[in-house]
Amino acid sequence: MSSKIGIIAGSLRKASYSKKIANAIVSMAPANFEFKIISLDDLPVYNQDFDDYNQVAESYTRFRNDLSTVDGVIFITPEYNRSVPGVLKNAIDIGSRPYGKSVWNNKPAAVFSNSPGNLSGFGANHTLRQSLVFLNMPTMQQPEVYLAHIDKSFDENGNLTDERTIGFLQKAVTSYINWFNQLTK
Amino acid sequence: MSSKIGIIAGSLRKASYSKKIANAIVSMAPANFEFKIISLDDLPVYNQDFDDYNQVAESYTRFRNDLSTVDGVIFITPEYNRSVPGVLKNAIDIGSRPYGKSVWNNKPAAVFSNSPGNLSGFGANHTLRQSLVFLNMPTMQQPEVYLAHIDKSFDENGNLTDERTIGFLQKAVTSYINWFNQLTK
Repeated sequence: MSSKIGIIAGSLRKASYSKKIANAIVSMAPANFEFKIISLDDLPVYNQDFDDYNQVAESYTRFRNDLSTVDGVIFITPEYNRSVPGVLKNAIDIGSRPYGKSVWNNKPAAVFSNSPGNLSGFGANHTLRQSLVFLNMPTMQQPEVYLAHIDKSFDENGNLTDERTIGFLQKAVTSYINWFNQLTK
Repeated sequence: MSSKIGIIAGSLRKASYSKKIANAIVSMAPANFEFKIISLDDLPVYNQDFDDYNQVAESYTRFRNDLSTVDGVIFITPEYNRSVPGVLKNAIDIGSRPYGKSVWNNKPAAVFSNSPGNLSGFGANHTLRQSLVFLNMPTMQQPEVYLAHIDKSFDENGNLTDERTIGFLQKAVTSYINWFNQLTK
């Protein structure tokens, strides 16, 4: 039986580096794994009233259903203002609700952060991990994935071409699969 | 000349405790200060393409304009998944952009967090402070404002009636005004 891993990019703009990394990772799925990109593009900002009054946005339901079909999640996150982008944190919040029905629960996770500068999204990476503790998502510790100078890693068509980055991502994906297998055997 | 302080509640539902606290605080403005609630209700999720392609949402402009008229900001935040609510982080991100035009810059701030449990939004409080460092908002250190069991602090009309909470908030607002005056003299 094959396992399904959700790949979530935490930025909405069309030319987002995180989306490009997500696209590159999809092709790294090993045998018996399917990597599926889960989009945040159509998710409105979370409002608990939507759940409480049964006015749930269609996209909330689509997103929660998508997540309920995956067995693990890899987050690809940029950093906004030294922390998780609001767009990604918002998706985290939507998936965690309604109360007691979190779709994140017990799914093995990994966090890959990136930035155009040196800091590599460290602030986003670790504030995201803080939420994953609460959400009970066992998160791969090593290797930590911090991708610096990410804007230099793509060709003009948006394909990931930097060999060092590709090699590191492949190693990280392999480690994540081992982590996943350990927890789901 | 009077100064204007923006009060931002980090949750959207109508009966939000943070909105109720914001309402209570508005009446605590001392002489020569105006406290003005700045709403997040209509802000869509941040997408840099809106800025890059001049397709800025009208509400982004409204929000950025509102913020540019205030001299300081008090954030009232609940905690979602041990961190800043996506809705509040999203507003932070919107106000910080386009690049080089952040409306947060150099505005003295305070963070008041709350939760229905004991933890009082500590996780949200401090991950928010992490972003305020980057945004260059000098943030009041003491008193730290953690409001526990906030659901017990209101009457049936949503008015803040718990005397201890009111007294503490008044003290915190006074400290914030002192902090503000120190920095803007």
